[in-house]
Amino acid sequence: MYKCNSRRLQESIEQFSQFGATPNGGVTRLSLSNEDLLARDYFCKCCEELGMKITIDDMANIYAILPGKKDVPPIVMGSHLDSVEKGGKFDGVLGVLTALEAIRTLKENDIELDVPLMIVNFTNEEGARFDPAMMSSGVIASKFDKDTMLQSVDKNGMTFKQALQESGYEGEKENRLHEALAYIELHIEQGPVLAAQQLEIGVVEGVLGMVCYEITITGESNHAGTTPMSMRKDPMIVASTIITYLHDQLGKIDETLVYTFGRMHVSPNIHTVIPNKVTFTIDSRHQSPEVMQKVEQVLKGLPNEQLGCHVQPAKRWGRDTVFFDALICAEVEKSCQGFGYSSQRMFSGAGHDAQYMASIIPSAMIFVPSINGKSHCEEEETSFEDCAKGADVLLETVLTLQTKFSMDETYTLH
Amino acid sequence: MYKCNSRRLQESIEQFSQFGATPNGGVTRLSLSNEDLLARDYFCKCCEELGMKITIDDMANIYAILPGKKDVPPIVMGSHLDSVEKGGKFDGVLGVLTALEAIRTLKENDIELDVPLMIVNFTNEEGARFDPAMMSSGVIASKFDKDTMLQSVDKNGMTFKQALQESGYEGEKENRLHEALAYIELHIEQGPVLAAQQLEIGVVEGVLGMVCYEITITGESNHAGTTPMSMRKDPMIVASTIITYLHDQLGKIDETLVYTFGRMHVSPNIHTVIPNKVTFTIDSRHQSPEVMQKVEQVLKGLPNEQLGCHVQPAKRWGRDTVFFDALICAEVEKSCQGFGYSSQRMFSGAGHDAQYMASIIPSAMIFVPSINGKSHCEEEETSFEDCAKGADVLLETVLTLQTKFSMDETYTLH
Repeated sequence: MYKCNSRRLQESIEQFSQFGATPNGGVTRLSLSNEDLLARDYFCKCCEELGMKITIDDMANIYAILPGKKDVPPIVMGSHLDSVEKGGKFDGVLGVLTALEAIRTLKENDIELDVPLMIVNFTNEEGARFDPAMMSSGVIASKFDKDTMLQSVDKNGMTFKQALQESGYEGEKENRLHEALAYIELHIEQGPVLAAQQLEIGVVEGVLGMVCYEITITGESNHAGTTPMSMRKDPMIVASTIITYLHDQLGKIDETLVYTFGRMHVSPNIHTVIPNKVTFTIDSRHQSPEVMQKVEQVLKGLPNEQLGCHVQPAKRWGRDTVFFDALICAEVEKSCQGFGYSSQRMFSGAGHDAQYMASIIPSAMIFVPSINGKSHCEEEETSFEDCAKGADVLLETVLTLQTKFSMDETYTLH
Repeated sequence: MYKCNSRRLQESIEQFSQFGATPNGGVTRLSLSNEDLLARDYFCKCCEELGMKITIDDMANIYAILPGKKDVPPIVMGSHLDSVEKGGKFDGVLGVLTALEAIRTLKENDIELDVPLMIVNFTNEEGARFDPAMMSSGVIASKFDKDTMLQSVDKNGMTFKQALQESGYEGEKENRLHEALAYIELHIEQGPVLAAQQLEIGVVEGVLGMVCYEITITGESNHAGTTPMSMRKDPMIVASTIITYLHDQLGKIDETLVYTFGRMHVSPNIHTVIPNKVTFTIDSRHQSPEVMQKVEQVLKGLPNEQLGCHVQPAKRWGRDTVFFDALICAEVEKSCQGFGYSSQRMFSGAGHDAQYMASIIPSAMIFVPSINGKSHCEEEETSFEDCAKGADVLLETVLTLQTKFSMDETYTLH
């Protein structure tokens, strides 16, 4: 079993955190921004120094390929180099840099594999500059329409198409990733579970299904001082009653179900005026379709009229649970055991490029702990030791899989 | 008993509604704006045509005086000509125009009174341009400090002092209203009570006491998908629980208590992020100090910690109930009975200049019905018939009071 060089990985993380560094120790590296382009350039340089060949597709996804002794589809590692505004220095980039560290470790040990290895950097995973998130993995997995994506506009009015053309990273459609033996993405957990249990690795079995509903409650504005309670149609009281009711009902469905009332708009939002409209969102996630169905039943079962107000739940979006490849998960778990790293099987509550890759390539993910569960903020943190352990597991999993493929070229994970 | 000319009053209301008319039938006539200055100029012209003398004080309050045969303090009627942004064409101005109509009716009938009559237009009652509301009645009643008021700034950065100086309506401090036999303010109800009961006049006994608290709930932001429910500190769930609890508790205190959760801010207000802070206001009003004490006990009794969140109630402001002069109220009620107009004694839930005047002059108010209880909006409406009935009652009350004063110059309402 080969262990990666934890000091070299740390230097690499610190180097990349300079591209878009914020004063508070975070990173702002929006997709195809100057900061992102600098990170891309440097990533390509690092790969080329290792003898890897760079190709780029029409969505500016970067593929760095280390040839194998056999002409078979590659094993792919990677993630994304872009960040949200004032994000952390681990989200996304760690999946690229642990892959780079894995290749460096192989090179250092003069190991030549039968199977080609590939590192991918997916464009605009965060969706922080151009909506939607996971845009480019989505396009190559036929989840999104490319022409629609090209029209996505950033807050300065620039389209994704323009940004693509000006980036110097617009490549050929024929370079898109479409065939690989496996796709393995290492990522920070972005949740508190591993850290709270002092576990070192999360073996990610899939991405939770989710629904997002927006519930609009329409009442009637009137003067806060002159309108008797009995003559009011107050949507704020109704909204609070509904949230309290949903918290109670959804809490009974399953203890691993999560639900969040993250956004609320109150109109006109003046302290001396009874609101006329309150709108709030509920985002709920669980791996079981049956549990998600129960959630939707509760939401759809809300009475249309409450205290004279009209209640309108509307489904804004949803996704089915994505299940990762069981054999890759098993290999990740075995690698952890081999190194003596504590691990736990888990689902990802957040979305990742791997969820789209999983529809075209056998895929899985490796999580490393997020201190205090923080992500998408400057306080995002993972210890360099944990990053290195993740890289060890990533490399070991790749080596095991390549041995299996190498021994039996008809071997497939699906 | 003299009846006012309802057609002339209607024309007068329609004429004034042109000063700052909005496309949807409302009025934007912010204090000391060009629209307000046009309305003031026209008001002064109307008064002078009736032989009234105009004086102006240092807060730009306008006083139009119709001399009486005796040199005694006047009976004062009036309200304010300013409006909120996109307000209605009755709020405030109706109190000035019914007073004008009362004087016109006296003149038309060649009635000369012993007691002088005065119409007052108070500056910046709404507080829509310069905070606070009821600024200028507040200054002359020593509720506000003038120098502080002069520094109040509108949204364009202009101070009240500048607006005052540029208006041409900055008069002398010595002209301030400080002595009068009575102050009677006619106003639209701004609530639904009279209209719902098909009553014609509200005999206003006072202005409800109120408190406004802001409740801040501090939790911890985390990813909506990756944070187990048991590891959350979700202030939105706590806010909803508290509002539901307060609705339940306050609803039991007194059936005429009103309370409103009008404003809520959620941070960061993103549907995929557990909020870290929710702040909301509660405005509560009732005439009884004991009831208001119970409200504050409930608010202060909220547990400081709920579901891991910190709960911080803070009193933002409050006012004690203002009680109007019982004898004027009795005269208003008798006037209604004399005309056969249906009436009800009630408290004002909204604030009015009369609440400050009441501390220096025996005061009362007359309400006319607001259709659907609407005010501070373009849909604000009162039938012209109801406006005229209000003017009848106003005039009759003034005549009765002046007769009493005239018969006994030592007569006082206090």
